[in-house]
Amino acid sequence: MGEIAVAVVDADTPGNVGTIARAMKNFGFADLLLVDPPDLDPDGEAYGMAGHAREDVLPGAEATTFDAIVENYYTVGFTAITNETGANHVRYPFLTPAELAGELAGIDADVALVFGREDVGLTNEEMARLDRVCSIPAGAEYPVLNLGQAATIALYELRGLTGTESQLPEITDRADAERIEGLLDQFGALLDAIGYREVKRAKTARLWRRLIGRAHPTEREVTTLRGVLRRASERAQEDDHGPHG
Amino acid sequence: MGEIAVAVVDADTPGNVGTIARAMKNFGFADLLLVDPPDLDPDGEAYGMAGHAREDVLPGAEATTFDAIVENYYTVGFTAITNETGANHVRYPFLTPAELAGELAGIDADVALVFGREDVGLTNEEMARLDRVCSIPAGAEYPVLNLGQAATIALYELRGLTGTESQLPEITDRADAERIEGLLDQFGALLDAIGYREVKRAKTARLWRRLIGRAHPTEREVTTLRGVLRRASERAQEDDHGPHG
Repeated sequence: MGEIAVAVVDADTPGNVGTIARAMKNFGFADLLLVDPPDLDPDGEAYGMAGHAREDVLPGAEATTFDAIVENYYTVGFTAITNETGANHVRYPFLTPAELAGELAGIDADVALVFGREDVGLTNEEMARLDRVCSIPAGAEYPVLNLGQAATIALYELRGLTGTESQLPEITDRADAERIEGLLDQFGALLDAIGYREVKRAKTARLWRRLIGRAHPTEREVTTLRGVLRRASERAQEDDHGPHG
Repeated sequence: MGEIAVAVVDADTPGNVGTIARAMKNFGFADLLLVDPPDLDPDGEAYGMAGHAREDVLPGAEATTFDAIVENYYTVGFTAITNETGANHVRYPFLTPAELAGELAGIDADVALVFGREDVGLTNEEMARLDRVCSIPAGAEYPVLNLGQAATIALYELRGLTGTESQLPEITDRADAERIEGLLDQFGALLDAIGYREVKRAKTARLWRRLIGRAHPTEREVTTLRGVLRRASERAQEDDHGPHG
């Protein structure tokens, strides 16, 4: 992979530029290219919306031209409105952002993701000069996303290409199958201890197995629940045979 | 599937509520629940950010309480910050939005997607009362998304659950294999017509096959390119044998 830059063409609203910068920072992108940008006052809305991107992505944004972007990058234009068929190649064929992520993973080029104006997006003349078309699937009734929201979704889908590590811990602690089996056994032991009706016992044990099977319990959950069931079984037997029985 | 509502708890910024309403409208969601909302002035930022959602989702938003949401819905709390392990169950185990989409597809319940405050999100006390935890994967360095952007991504990932039809036409017009084969043959004919060196012919034909194989051309592309190649072959032969040869 080369670098992936985000290019914003002729945006009107500083807040949208800030929103895009924030999404870039959230998902590990650094290079922001601005064609005819609005004024980005450090005390204004762009910096107000940028979160931590106010420290690097936004002040580091590069003012450039559409020509320079076309010349130097493999360009992907974003649009809500595609052509319907192959009879017109301005906005066709197109990819979804998820498909784009797959495709970009396989190529070695500097890529510019190109977003257009708040009201009309990229013009047909601009789109025709870009290498690839990407469109975010949305409801047919109202598919036009806000500029900042569209870029956010695109960057979210492409986050895997930046090599940035996620904040989420790997979930590796589904309990071992053997430990989960122990939890199922403990439930059976409880049914015994409380004198559950013999004829219904297998059916109820199966119900518990299905429920636990759907829940994929963690080690901690299994340990805690086994403890609860064991304790309940002991108490039930104390009641039967102990001093209070 | 039951209905999927979006609940926003104690948001400060009308613009974020508008952004969320717009994403709901874009992705086919209708029910917006607001707990302690900011003032939503019809001339203010919420309506300004809502796009077409200013016509239905936003004015139809229902003011409610956290208790009522917990009572009436299968609740999914969103947070950027999860617990690291199963030692603490306030924010663990968690799902990503894509995983949540898969899980919700299989259940029949009314679901509330619950989003918290701009600065601190949902409190531990609130999270502990919700059924499920969802976290959007982002860069470890700065995983905290803006409220409106987080909701936008969640709704984008869950769009398939609403039954809303996408604006994108189905791409069904990759040309037939037979037609594509014809385009490959036409290229071979061109190599013949231009007197391409015999020893390199097979290799160059293979290069063309590989390129076309990657590009998945449409019917239109195949037809147009076959025409171009045929014309070029004819011209090459005219030059050899015709009046201008």
